[in-house]
Amino acid sequence: MQETIKPGDLILLATEEGKTYLVYAEKKAFQTHKDSFDLGLLLGHPWGTRLKGQKGTYCFALRPTLHDHLMKLKRVTQIIYPKDIGYILLKLDIGPGKVVLECGTGSGALLLALAHSVGPSGKVITYEKEKRFQEVALSNAKRVGLLDRIVFKDIAVNTFEEEEEIDAVFLDLKTPWELLPAAWKALKGGAPLGILLPTTNQVSETLKQLQQLPFTQTEVVELFIRFYKTNPQRLRPEDRMVGHTGFLIFSRKYLP
Amino acid sequence: MQETIKPGDLILLATEEGKTYLVYAEKKAFQTHKDSFDLGLLLGHPWGTRLKGQKGTYCFALRPTLHDHLMKLKRVTQIIYPKDIGYILLKLDIGPGKVVLECGTGSGALLLALAHSVGPSGKVITYEKEKRFQEVALSNAKRVGLLDRIVFKDIAVNTFEEEEEIDAVFLDLKTPWELLPAAWKALKGGAPLGILLPTTNQVSETLKQLQQLPFTQTEVVELFIRFYKTNPQRLRPEDRMVGHTGFLIFSRKYLP
Amino acid sequence: MQETIKPGDLILLATEEGKTYLVYAEKKAFQTHKDSFDLGLLLGHPWGTRLKGQKGTYCFALRPTLHDHLMKLKRVTQIIYPKDIGYILLKLDIGPGKVVLECGTGSGALLLALAHSVGPSGKVITYEKEKRFQEVALSNAKRVGLLDRIVFKDIAVNTFEEEEEIDAVFLDLKTPWELLPAAWKALKGGAPLGILLPTTNQVSETLKQLQQLPFTQTEVVELFIRFYKTNPQRLRPEDRMVGHTGFLIFSRKYLP
Amino acid sequence: MQETIKPGDLILLATEEGKTYLVYAEKKAFQTHKDSFDLGLLLGHPWGTRLKGQKGTYCFALRPTLHDHLMKLKRVTQIIYPKDIGYILLKLDIGPGKVVLECGTGSGALLLALAHSVGPSGKVITYEKEKRFQEVALSNAKRVGLLDRIVFKDIAVNTFEEEEEIDAVFLDLKTPWELLPAAWKALKGGAPLGILLPTTNQVSETLKQLQQLPFTQTEVVELFIRFYKTNPQRLRPEDRMVGHTGFLIFSRKYLP
Repeated sequence: MQETIKPGDLILLATEEGKTYLVYAEKKAFQTHKDSFDLGLLLGHPWGTRLKGQKGTYCFALRPTLHDHLMKLKRVTQIIYPKDIGYILLKLDIGPGKVVLECGTGSGALLLALAHSVGPSGKVITYEKEKRFQEVALSNAKRVGLLDRIVFKDIAVNTFEEEEEIDAVFLDLKTPWELLPAAWKALKGGAPLGILLPTTNQVSETLKQLQQLPFTQTEVVELFIRFYKTNPQRLRPEDRMVGHTGFLIFSRKYLP
Repeated sequence: MQETIKPGDLILLATEEGKTYLVYAEKKAFQTHKDSFDLGLLLGHPWGTRLKGQKGTYCFALRPTLHDHLMKLKRVTQIIYPKDIGYILLKLDIGPGKVVLECGTGSGALLLALAHSVGPSGKVITYEKEKRFQEVALSNAKRVGLLDRIVFKDIAVNTFEEEEEIDAVFLDLKTPWELLPAAWKALKGGAPLGILLPTTNQVSETLKQLQQLPFTQTEVVELFIRFYKTNPQRLRPEDRMVGHTGFLIFSRKYLP
Repeated sequence: MQETIKPGDLILLATEEGKTYLVYAEKKAFQTHKDSFDLGLLLGHPWGTRLKGQKGTYCFALRPTLHDHLMKLKRVTQIIYPKDIGYILLKLDIGPGKVVLECGTGSGALLLALAHSVGPSGKVITYEKEKRFQEVALSNAKRVGLLDRIVFKDIAVNTFEEEEEIDAVFLDLKTPWELLPAAWKALKGGAPLGILLPTTNQVSETLKQLQQLPFTQTEVVELFIRFYKTNPQRLRPEDRMVGHTGFLIFSRKYLP
Repeated sequence: MQETIKPGDLILLATEEGKTYLVYAEKKAFQTHKDSFDLGLLLGHPWGTRLKGQKGTYCFALRPTLHDHLMKLKRVTQIIYPKDIGYILLKLDIGPGKVVLECGTGSGALLLALAHSVGPSGKVITYEKEKRFQEVALSNAKRVGLLDRIVFKDIAVNTFEEEEEIDAVFLDLKTPWELLPAAWKALKGGAPLGILLPTTNQVSETLKQLQQLPFTQTEVVELFIRFYKTNPQRLRPEDRMVGHTGFLIFSRKYLP
């Protein structure tokens, strides 16, 4: 049974040139810089419907994927990028039913991906010290409809003290080495730890501390993504690319 | 409650230098090229336990993650790599409860990742023409315990004819352009399509065909992963890296 | 003996934050967006002198290197980048005394590098069809003082007909495959050919034609350059990088 | 006038699949793993000649370029790679007539490139502490015919004390920061300094020291090279690539 667009649904409105907008389904005109689209015409029509604008261009009413939401997130901090998020999910073994801990929450990009992947039977506990970031992340999670499986906590109040038998921990803050003993305590035996860091100095410092603790199978990686222009007769990479987001460290807790 | 290792459990046995072995928990000695480990000592102990070998080196008894399983897969074909799998899962919006279609199955690396992510409430329908590949993929899925949500089909018998309202389609075969109309028919409106291809010529050909069909928001990307040596005093990338696995194409079905 | 800055000398004026300007030594104030520098104070002083501005910031009076000139070139076309130029010089075996042929001239970036490397005893013959580009390249070469070893020709008039026993040929135009027989004729036996192309389709077409001709040891490569921020306490790559300039093809003429 | 192959000439013998061998022209059979070639047949024939083997395969008699020599160098140390050498030559502004200083010599790869580029009117002064490396570098330079412009010195005896007004300095040793004051003293005002380092820790340490000295316009870069398979119908990058050689630092001396 085809699902149709209902009033209040979030729509990813995508133009022919690939510009995208996150809009609510309602009886209202939506103005891009090139054309005007009557969103009311979409109501009751199936997802994926092509809509003609007043000036004759087209846009497409797509149901937003998690990736779409990540690209449209309200941001108050640098977010973790999809190229990194995909790999993090895999290395942390995230899946339905898992209980995951992250610190800090930031704008909530990784948080949403974790919450999406653990499903309704899983849980994501996310620590942050900045009230302001937490509020933005909460509002982002609400919009995507993932609040039911997220627990927000304040890292200034406690350092994972009440957590135990956690399936995976991810640290995204300036001095993750300070939280390594607490992360170790919270994790299940053998469970994966992930860390994101922008500078080589932080990576060195973190590796030094990891060596002092019962962690093993430590890896440091960097991911690159390269976009291509999609003209089949003139296939070539884009002129510019992201040169750096961060280094990723992964490790596993062991019981000495 | 800490879970303990039981007879018959699959263990990722990891040495201090990072060599890993997939073994079954049983009363038996396991020989690496450097030491010998009495696996029987692990029974009844928690996951993550460190085990001393006869010659005094250590190994760690880790519960295998999906990523570990992917690295240890029985292979009869070139497999899709974790760097690509993580991004594919994100772009195809895979998560608990989704119904996904892939063709071809190959050794089943992406299949396992899809099956892991859709969870017990989801489904992966995987098409293949080589009986031999299908058998290997089936045995790989069985070992990881994901068979319950996978349906194996033969692409030589039918081309997605019975599929409809599919949440995402992934094509990993030499001539994906031939399956684009069938993929379009099977997909939900607005739903994502993914394709992996090794050569630029295949990318051009696929892009040409995508342009003829009601697909939009087409992207071509390439992902790189770079591993670092983990000595904190001598941090540096590894000397060698994987130079190419494949180009990824993503697109979205629309309703004209 | 230290050389000093004389009136009329070209100076690379570099600020503390790394902004650079190509200016002539003369009694005149030079205005950056942050400060004002009295260039007259540099006359008679050695190269490398630090100059204090009116507002107390510093700039440095550097003798422009070839690389500096390339970055400051007057451009009417996309230029070949230093990362590619360095490798081209090496693969084409450019050095003092060599006779090199290139087509097209464009803005003259590679031309200047070739002319610089062959020295006063060498020669660069450069073909172009656009009068306008040729004029810009000529004025660029004049400014750098390399005109004595450059011969400008019009590819619309003849196709390397008068050239023979050339040490190396470089082709930088849209349809290099059309010039391969002429390039072959012009080259010495065993001598290297280089080609720059932006798209994979052009690379495929060129490779197809090279296979039909007495060329051997064909290589296709791509070069990337990644810049780092230079804070020693926060060492990390720059956020953005150039994602693509072009593919390089190299081959060698043989005598069948 | 076509030059011909004379007895004693060094030939790069290249097979159809791209295997290469550096051999001397003489009346002798040369055995590859696939065929046998009568080198005597090449004498008196022009460079670039194709030679048929006993089993019907072909090889090509190419005059070795500098790049060919670098790939065939006798190595006692890790050598600097062509991708880096090309860029180093450009950033150090190497060209005919320049006087360049390098430390350490190693196997002499960069040394040969520098000596080739400065031509007979230039000079390369190369410091090394290991007698054994120096001897290998000397024999490599002799074979390529570049000894006339090279001066070998022992860094254990003196630290550039007798050098002044040098056009460019390159440092390739473990602790380049110790030589920065000596390099500064040896350089011309405004002249470029280059440094190669494998680890990020060394880069940080060097940057720290550079900041203490009258050096400006400091850059840190990394270069990647990616080779493609040359089948025009199946164009794609090679499966494996070099992941890391070293980080390059460039800076310029100023006069405070």
